[in-house]
Amino acid sequence: MALAAFLTDYGPASEHVGALHAVLAREAPGVDRIDLAHDLPAGDVRFAAIVLERTARLLPGAVVVAVVDPGVGTPRRGVAIETTDGGALIGPDNGLLALAADSLEAERAVALEGPGDGPATFHGRDVFAPIAARLVLGARLDQVGAPIDLATLVRPDLPRPLVAEGSVTTRVAGVDRFGNIALHASGADLSAADFAPGEQLRIVLPDRELGVALARVFGDVPAGELLLHIDSHGMAAIAANGASAADLLDVEPDMPVRILREERG
Amino acid sequence: MALAAFLTDYGPASEHVGALHAVLAREAPGVDRIDLAHDLPAGDVRFAAIVLERTARLLPGAVVVAVVDPGVGTPRRGVAIETTDGGALIGPDNGLLALAADSLEAERAVALEGPGDGPATFHGRDVFAPIAARLVLGARLDQVGAPIDLATLVRPDLPRPLVAEGSVTTRVAGVDRFGNIALHASGADLSAADFAPGEQLRIVLPDRELGVALARVFGDVPAGELLLHIDSHGMAAIAANGASAADLLDVEPDMPVRILREERG
Amino acid sequence: MALAAFLTDYGPASEHVGALHAVLAREAPGVDRIDLAHDLPAGDVRFAAIVLERTARLLPGAVVVAVVDPGVGTPRRGVAIETTDGGALIGPDNGLLALAADSLEAERAVALEGPGDGPATFHGRDVFAPIAARLVLGARLDQVGAPIDLATLVRPDLPRPLVAEGSVTTRVAGVDRFGNIALHASGADLSAADFAPGEQLRIVLPDRELGVALARVFGDVPAGELLLHIDSHGMAAIAANGASAADLLDVEPDMPVRILREERG
Repeated sequence: MALAAFLTDYGPASEHVGALHAVLAREAPGVDRIDLAHDLPAGDVRFAAIVLERTARLLPGAVVVAVVDPGVGTPRRGVAIETTDGGALIGPDNGLLALAADSLEAERAVALEGPGDGPATFHGRDVFAPIAARLVLGARLDQVGAPIDLATLVRPDLPRPLVAEGSVTTRVAGVDRFGNIALHASGADLSAADFAPGEQLRIVLPDRELGVALARVFGDVPAGELLLHIDSHGMAAIAANGASAADLLDVEPDMPVRILREERG
Repeated sequence: MALAAFLTDYGPASEHVGALHAVLAREAPGVDRIDLAHDLPAGDVRFAAIVLERTARLLPGAVVVAVVDPGVGTPRRGVAIETTDGGALIGPDNGLLALAADSLEAERAVALEGPGDGPATFHGRDVFAPIAARLVLGARLDQVGAPIDLATLVRPDLPRPLVAEGSVTTRVAGVDRFGNIALHASGADLSAADFAPGEQLRIVLPDRELGVALARVFGDVPAGELLLHIDSHGMAAIAANGASAADLLDVEPDMPVRILREERG
Repeated sequence: MALAAFLTDYGPASEHVGALHAVLAREAPGVDRIDLAHDLPAGDVRFAAIVLERTARLLPGAVVVAVVDPGVGTPRRGVAIETTDGGALIGPDNGLLALAADSLEAERAVALEGPGDGPATFHGRDVFAPIAARLVLGARLDQVGAPIDLATLVRPDLPRPLVAEGSVTTRVAGVDRFGNIALHASGADLSAADFAPGEQLRIVLPDRELGVALARVFGDVPAGELLLHIDSHGMAAIAANGASAADLLDVEPDMPVRILREERG
């Protein structure tokens, strides 16, 4: 069953999203099309790379067009990447595709021709969607571009958490509409720091410190209270039971966050 | 013709909406999927229950996943409800589903297993969408959960209008993007108060009073002027001809509103 | 391959958009549905007319429902227009459809019955979508309304650019989420003013003047700098390389803009 999927920072139900759908519907009629996300922060390639990885892996075999492309109209490369499940990732080679390419096991990649003399700023409509239509209809990867070395794909510059016994030093990755604050650290990082479920921890932000439980579910803490937990994507996150953690704390992407074992005594 | 539909407060074109589509596309390929609404106020179960009722009734026979779930990660129950048209309503049992269940004539219901040891906070992706895929592919209701008594379903705590001759006392239900102000009262409530089409009425808000006509269409009043009318869902609503009533009045959900017969003399 | 498409100012993933999809899915099952745009500025018929023209032309043969309708509930006419490609444009006759009708070569048009005694304010759901379902299923245009003269269709009142040698006087058409500022002038207008690619030009706004290059791609100017270019829809636009032009300049729709040859010496 052929599937095309889209992830962009074009804005929900914008005409740019409409244009991607129109190209696919016209060039590959009958193919199912899925919007993975279009509300991503404009131009934030790093956060979009994380979201692409975790949504694309829900759809093995899909042909995914991903466009968060602050460098459109500069010499950055467009690429298509084939993955072991038979699917493909298509978009700018600016770090956006690399995490999904790892997760879905990239097998080969090609560089795409630019739009030539056509409009220079809407590669989603003019370059990536037409390539997606060809691939979803069965074109081979080497028919749509010139082979490149997978090792040359640009990788996103993500902050790596610093993990020690009783301490994880990381940064804010993003905030969702419910006020959940995702961190650039995983459940495995918290385990590596030897934090135990239910343990009382200390979170140090630039302007304040607070004590929170390492909880499994929101209901493990009283209504309205903050908690640290592993979110549904496996990322460490600060949340609140029935409330918005972002409303309680004043954070923004990239802000440093330290998680420490609570001192006893 | 099998149909799956979604209504959430996940935010338009968010990755959470994308995940619901991805699960359905993967588990039930070829099934038509419809987004009934995703821009609902975060966590406002009562208003979402109203919107679910009036959109779900447009799609008899559909399998509808509805998620406005401030209690996710607490012990609240997940349920699936079968309706007489052969469709189903799936979501948290927090009042969200009850009005649609009434309107579509619920026949039976089951309680759903939680996500077990999996992620605890994304039941849309991990619990409700997979159940929807099974039902839309033909599973029987008793194959996806344990039967429960329909009478035990949680009902939304909606403010009931107080209706007397010449007076309706109610509250603001919500404001749409055009600035139309829906009230928790129906056209039948206005009739029960013996208000006649075209009649001049008085609206009493906490901070002001105003005179408006009970109009049938916007064009019944001069451009820019306020009116009271029955909106396209049968709710009493304050609107303005070619303008935003919410910009002219300073209201918010739950604010008390009295509608009175204009004193003559 | 039958296609239905929607363009509205209903707001992304609003229940009003959901209702359009529900009506089409119910009345015309199996027909592909595309959201061309729903995030258009509420009630801005002129800008929506431009967006409708350039998105509808991506989908020859589609049945397109377009609703930006500040006059709903007033006596304005609803129409359906058949185009040479076999498609149709359906919506209020308020100027919204005229540019697309020109571009897709309208062949004939009919006036639609209103909603009768039904709800008076949601013609998208109650009038236009049901007509779209009938047309996409093969109804003839004369079966859905009464013939009208194409010359009577309302046209949008767009500001025409004033073009002279070395000078284009125009207005701001709109600003997208990336901060690109589209003008009511085309690439042809810039050519008619005898501006050459790469030329240094002067932009005069009500509160300031600035020098910019007439560039082909964003990368033609240093990062963060403003440029004038022809955007992906053929409109003259002020943009910035890797930045938001709207953040650098304080503009709003309809603001006057003059583009002049830079004085040398």
